Amino acid sequence: MNDTVRVTIWNEYRHEREDERYAAVYPMGIHGAIAEGLAAFPELATTAATLDEPEHGLTEERLAATDVLIWWGHKAHAEVADAVIDRVYRRVLDGMGLIVLHSGHFSKIFKRLMGTSCDLKWRVGADGERLWVVAPGHPIVEGIGEFIQLEAEEMYGEHFDVPPPEQLVFVSWFDGGEVFRSGCCYTRGAGKIFYFRPGHESFPTFHNPKIRRVIGNAAKWAAPTSGPRRTFGRSEPVGPAAT
Amino acid sequence: MNDTVRVTIWNEYRHEREDERYAAVYPMGIHGAIAEGLAAFPELATTAATLDEPEHGLTEERLAATDVLIWWGHKAHAEVADAVIDRVYRRVLDGMGLIVLHSGHFSKIFKRLMGTSCDLKWRVGADGERLWVVAPGHPIVEGIGEFIQLEAEEMYGEHFDVPPPEQLVFVSWFDGGEVFRSGCCYTRGAGKIFYFRPGHESFPTFHNPKIRRVIGNAAKWAAPTSGPRRTFGRSEPVGPAAT
Amino acid sequence: MNDTVRVTIWNEYRHEREDERYAAVYPMGIHGAIAEGLAAFPELATTAATLDEPEHGLTEERLAATDVLIWWGHKAHAEVADAVIDRVYRRVLDGMGLIVLHSGHFSKIFKRLMGTSCDLKWRVGADGERLWVVAPGHPIVEGIGEFIQLEAEEMYGEHFDVPPPEQLVFVSWFDGGEVFRSGCCYTRGAGKIFYFRPGHESFPTFHNPKIRRVIGNAAKWAAPTSGPRRTFGRSEPVGPAAT
Amino acid sequence: MNDTVRVTIWNEYRHEREDERYAAVYPMGIHGAIAEGLAAFPELATTAATLDEPEHGLTEERLAATDVLIWWGHKAHAEVADAVIDRVYRRVLDGMGLIVLHSGHFSKIFKRLMGTSCDLKWRVGADGERLWVVAPGHPIVEGIGEFIQLEAEEMYGEHFDVPPPEQLVFVSWFDGGEVFRSGCCYTRGAGKIFYFRPGHESFPTFHNPKIRRVIGNAAKWAAPTSGPRRTFGRSEPVGPAAT
Repeated sequence: MNDTVRVTIWNEYRHEREDERYAAVYPMGIHGAIAEGLAAFPELATTAATLDEPEHGLTEERLAATDVLIWWGHKAHAEVADAVIDRVYRRVLDGMGLIVLHSGHFSKIFKRLMGTSCDLKWRVGADGERLWVVAPGHPIVEGIGEFIQLEAEEMYGEHFDVPPPEQLVFVSWFDGGEVFRSGCCYTRGAGKIFYFRPGHESFPTFHNPKIRRVIGNAAKWAAPTSGPRRTFGRSEPVGPAAT
Repeated sequence: MNDTVRVTIWNEYRHEREDERYAAVYPMGIHGAIAEGLAAFPELATTAATLDEPEHGLTEERLAATDVLIWWGHKAHAEVADAVIDRVYRRVLDGMGLIVLHSGHFSKIFKRLMGTSCDLKWRVGADGERLWVVAPGHPIVEGIGEFIQLEAEEMYGEHFDVPPPEQLVFVSWFDGGEVFRSGCCYTRGAGKIFYFRPGHESFPTFHNPKIRRVIGNAAKWAAPTSGPRRTFGRSEPVGPAAT
Repeated sequence: MNDTVRVTIWNEYRHEREDERYAAVYPMGIHGAIAEGLAAFPELATTAATLDEPEHGLTEERLAATDVLIWWGHKAHAEVADAVIDRVYRRVLDGMGLIVLHSGHFSKIFKRLMGTSCDLKWRVGADGERLWVVAPGHPIVEGIGEFIQLEAEEMYGEHFDVPPPEQLVFVSWFDGGEVFRSGCCYTRGAGKIFYFRPGHESFPTFHNPKIRRVIGNAAKWAAPTSGPRRTFGRSEPVGPAAT
Repeated sequence: MNDTVRVTIWNEYRHEREDERYAAVYPMGIHGAIAEGLAAFPELATTAATLDEPEHGLTEERLAATDVLIWWGHKAHAEVADAVIDRVYRRVLDGMGLIVLHSGHFSKIFKRLMGTSCDLKWRVGADGERLWVVAPGHPIVEGIGEFIQLEAEEMYGEHFDVPPPEQLVFVSWFDGGEVFRSGCCYTRGAGKIFYFRPGHESFPTFHNPKIRRVIGNAAKWAAPTSGPRRTFGRSEPVGPAAT
């Protein structure tokens, strides 16, 4: 628990390279802004990987050296190779943490781990968002206060087609009249998963200190533990416990 | 809730046709034994479908007329066509109930809805099993008593690689020293899912009155409700609630 | 499940007798308005009891003949006798359903069953409320649509100091900027509990058809099942399951 | 998270002083054995308190300086003063962790926080117990392996009358044929609670290295976080999130 947590930020990294509006908000890429935020956490050692690298930057070796993977994707979900998704999937079941951000709700990896469509309502407009903490003792909200306020964000509204969160941490209020379960914890295999709603490419959300704090807290929370090796298959009787 | 629940029992139906030992236990097939049990429930209207029928008996029309699908499969999971699985998957998200029995834990549909490997320990031997009720107020255990005892069953042992059940109904004790979360409820989309552990092809489990009662109770519990039509996609502001 | 569910509506019944403003909204009392709504459910047989009756109308006999108890209280929580609360508490653990409405969050019975303070933020003003369905397949939301809109209600805001709901059914959006987990399901012993947020004495909430539908649905959902008799205490070994 | 966690072990400390059989197993008291185990955790600073000290050793000052309270009690639950229980209860809601061991299931504090009877089946005999890990990624099972085996323990059997655990970590198998949910996590207010089943006064359970490891892991897991100050009561509108 006190050892360094090795975090890999995976970013699609297309919007910021292809459109000046997004490059202006995220000149170092969305991954760069997230990494800047995580630099405040001495427990975290952060690197980044992007879609257009070979194997999307997610080789077996790279994943084996990743404790927590952060995922931002949007318009190129379909371009992520199934073989890489299989690899990430197996690593999550084996204990790697996964933090899925915003439009990552429609990523192949999140849909596969959730078992649902992960669909939702959305609107890019003039909505502000207020994320209320509903689990005040959860490690993910340490240092956040009662809510996080974002003056402009894309709206995501219910129904959010995910399994009921095992722990619901944030609920969002939107100016336009909607709510959203915006901080959701799950377990899959030995891995911990946190879905965190905010982070549209056109808004400076990942520069917000509280958003950065949540992502760093979540990386610490999602770090693997040296739990039992999970064994499966044909098995001999263990017998009575008394001897 | 008072209307008839249309139940389709899907059975792989290979063991019973190919091996006299299993045919002796289930002369009308596993689906036949389950159907016989469900006949005691006047609210349920039951039919069956099997792997070797065209489209595995699960056409769009058939699924549209199914409220709850019961699934037994074992050695031919890989033969179930992905197109049929897609169809079943969409129907579950839209509200169809799904009851997965025993070795169905490794079926394509269950793994897809769970988002995990669904692996476990197993042993076919001389184990007896005792399924203890841990949720005494749950509708699925109505009329069951404190436990169900099965003199011979295949052992399934933890770790069972599924998401934590939303409701845990049964925990099994095995003679050989293992435990298993053997009655697990989930929600996916608008659909309810119940995984129920017992039911190896070589044992007369589906002739057991309590096992039959559980499956019937589960079919009633998993029946769809006329809930909100789930709408997704681009959405206009709803505005203030006060007028 | 098809038998009649015997519902007792318990109402503090002070506001409506003591203040013309509330009497104008609820001339037959809050319990009268709820009962009128439940009359649409042929499965429900409804009666009422109030604080100022002997034993608050909740004698052993009365409770023994109650399948689901609905609870509305506000300013006189402290006047409810502990002996009656003990009685209700035991009945819930034994399987009686309990539906707690609005300001009943601070009732002795709810606090005792939750194990927390049940405190929250509040404001009586000009807020409208929109209750979004987040569990579209749950029996409690049958026939409701995607949300319920109330033009004027008291605001309740997070943090709501209750245990995490076992099933979260509604999340409220308020004009003033707050959210609230406004439909929460719990299990205590063999009993099912539903907390439902709306219903301030000054607003015609219990005349709203959708609110009535939710309460009726909840009464059906919370009805006891003939589950195992829960036995406790010193116990002999059960022995192996195989014989 | 990296700071020292201040742990107070509370022990009834009667059996060990009054009966040579128990003194032989726990010459320094049960609290002494637990403290010895926690000494292996450099993050934990451990002290003890016992029933027969003034205010049971749990003054306001002492509790204010406690991050995690461990509770072992058995035959003198009724002697614990309600005023002290009130104090512990408020501290848990404010974030103090609580680990309840074995017969502490019937303590006033556990029953109050659970909202149920906390009753169960039991037998002191020749049962061995095997605690299977069912949540392999949970921090509480770090370093434990697939199960913990205890050659002799008191049996506790289902039905265990507690709310469904928010996280179920261990399930016990007993030689006599029973199962038990033996590692259960809960949230109450900002506080985390872990109930851990083993630990009868006549058996050397608290000398077992794996049991000690679980208690230490649980103390780290249950430590408070500097979450939002929970505010309640009358509240002004927050207004739109956009500015």
